Amino acid sequence: MNIPKSHPRFVSLQTREKLVKAFGSGLVAKEGLIAQGRGEALDYLIGEKTSKSAKKAISAAAYTLQNAKNPVISVNGNFAALCTPEIIKLSRILDAKIEVNLFYGPESRKKAIARLLKKSGAKEILGTDLKSARKLKGIDSARRIVDKDGIFSADVVLVPLEDGDRTIALKKAKKKVITFDLNPLSRTAQASDVTIVDNVTRAMKLLVKACKKKKVKPRYNNKEVLAESISEIKKNLKRRARLA
Amino acid sequence: MNIPKSHPRFVSLQTREKLVKAFGSGLVAKEGLIAQGRGEALDYLIGEKTSKSAKKAISAAAYTLQNAKNPVISVNGNFAALCTPEIIKLSRILDAKIEVNLFYGPESRKKAIARLLKKSGAKEILGTDLKSARKLKGIDSARRIVDKDGIFSADVVLVPLEDGDRTIALKKAKKKVITFDLNPLSRTAQASDVTIVDNVTRAMKLLVKACKKKKVKPRYNNKEVLAESISEIKKNLKRRARLA
Repeated sequence: MNIPKSHPRFVSLQTREKLVKAFGSGLVAKEGLIAQGRGEALDYLIGEKTSKSAKKAISAAAYTLQNAKNPVISVNGNFAALCTPEIIKLSRILDAKIEVNLFYGPESRKKAIARLLKKSGAKEILGTDLKSARKLKGIDSARRIVDKDGIFSADVVLVPLEDGDRTIALKKAKKKVITFDLNPLSRTAQASDVTIVDNVTRAMKLLVKACKKKKVKPRYNNKEVLAESISEIKKNLKRRARLA
Repeated sequence: MNIPKSHPRFVSLQTREKLVKAFGSGLVAKEGLIAQGRGEALDYLIGEKTSKSAKKAISAAAYTLQNAKNPVISVNGNFAALCTPEIIKLSRILDAKIEVNLFYGPESRKKAIARLLKKSGAKEILGTDLKSARKLKGIDSARRIVDKDGIFSADVVLVPLEDGDRTIALKKAKKKVITFDLNPLSRTAQASDVTIVDNVTRAMKLLVKACKKKKVKPRYNNKEVLAESISEIKKNLKRRARLA
């Protein structure tokens, strides 16, 4: 696979190859590759940088996580493939649990993800023990299965790259939901308590930093911040259209 | 793979599964799954329907193809997986050649695509005979290899889901380039003679219809139509933001 260095989207193509490799090692689903593509396009539209509104959401997410009693980081294949070091750092700083939860998944993929996280330094990975499985109400997919010691009993859940059904189910189960979603219009983005409209590879680094700092309660309104994200996309489109 | 019918993005998920299946039968590259994802996100932003500006581009594309001396339809894995019947219809109506040309290679995938097209009724598929291989100048990837009887000697090339480098190389080789590209800001979109900013599954059906009709020379300016596409995305964002 030779990506010519002259290609103007070399960096984006390199990240793509990272996902493709993770697919090869059984971490990422075929549908996860497609999800990565959606992310690429949306990231392109936000200008491939962390916006002001995303920074506000990251501060609010940090405060919410720092004040949680039982915070849980929900991990899928793409998240593990792109952010394993940050997932582990965040879980240490916050004393947060890590749970593997998949939309498309055989158990073997769950286990491959758990193995990667453990190999990289995570102490305990929830979500792979069938004896601890509980069902979230109001959701059809495999994602309804959650761990009794993890998401099932969490007060705050960090759910990156999420599907709308599950976000809504988590809200119904009275969880605070923090999510990464590059589409500010998605059901997940709209239903979550804090939505970080940013590429997870950039935003997780910033979230780790923010969680290390002293707690500062921010003024935060998710709907307002989402509206800002949408304006930013529109501005960026205008700017790019002028350059084209 | 059970997609719950209750899922609000059921149709989009179904199309996704089509690509995933084509990946399973060796037609689509892993990178092609990611490209499909980019298409999904951009299609979402244009409202998942053919815009007015796309219709203008389709008319201009039909006129250009109808007047070509040696039109060639360039086919990759995703295009074959989603549009084989339309590719064959179009090649018959226009007496256009079909050439398989891939960004991410091996020969086995080229052959799988050629087999599918032949099984579905195509008489001749170019691009798989090494003896006919010629190189396009100014391009690094595997896509520089073209068929001497196909793209190499074509006056008009229909290149769906294209990369920017090759579009520019085709332009330098004095070809007229017609492309499908859901990103009106991409280098391909900007460098092509006619850019159809639409989902290829909808647009190919409309292009087949348009090519069956009498030739009508449209007034057409690609840059203007691309600017209209960008405005349509902005309008759609505004509309969706109001509904959110």
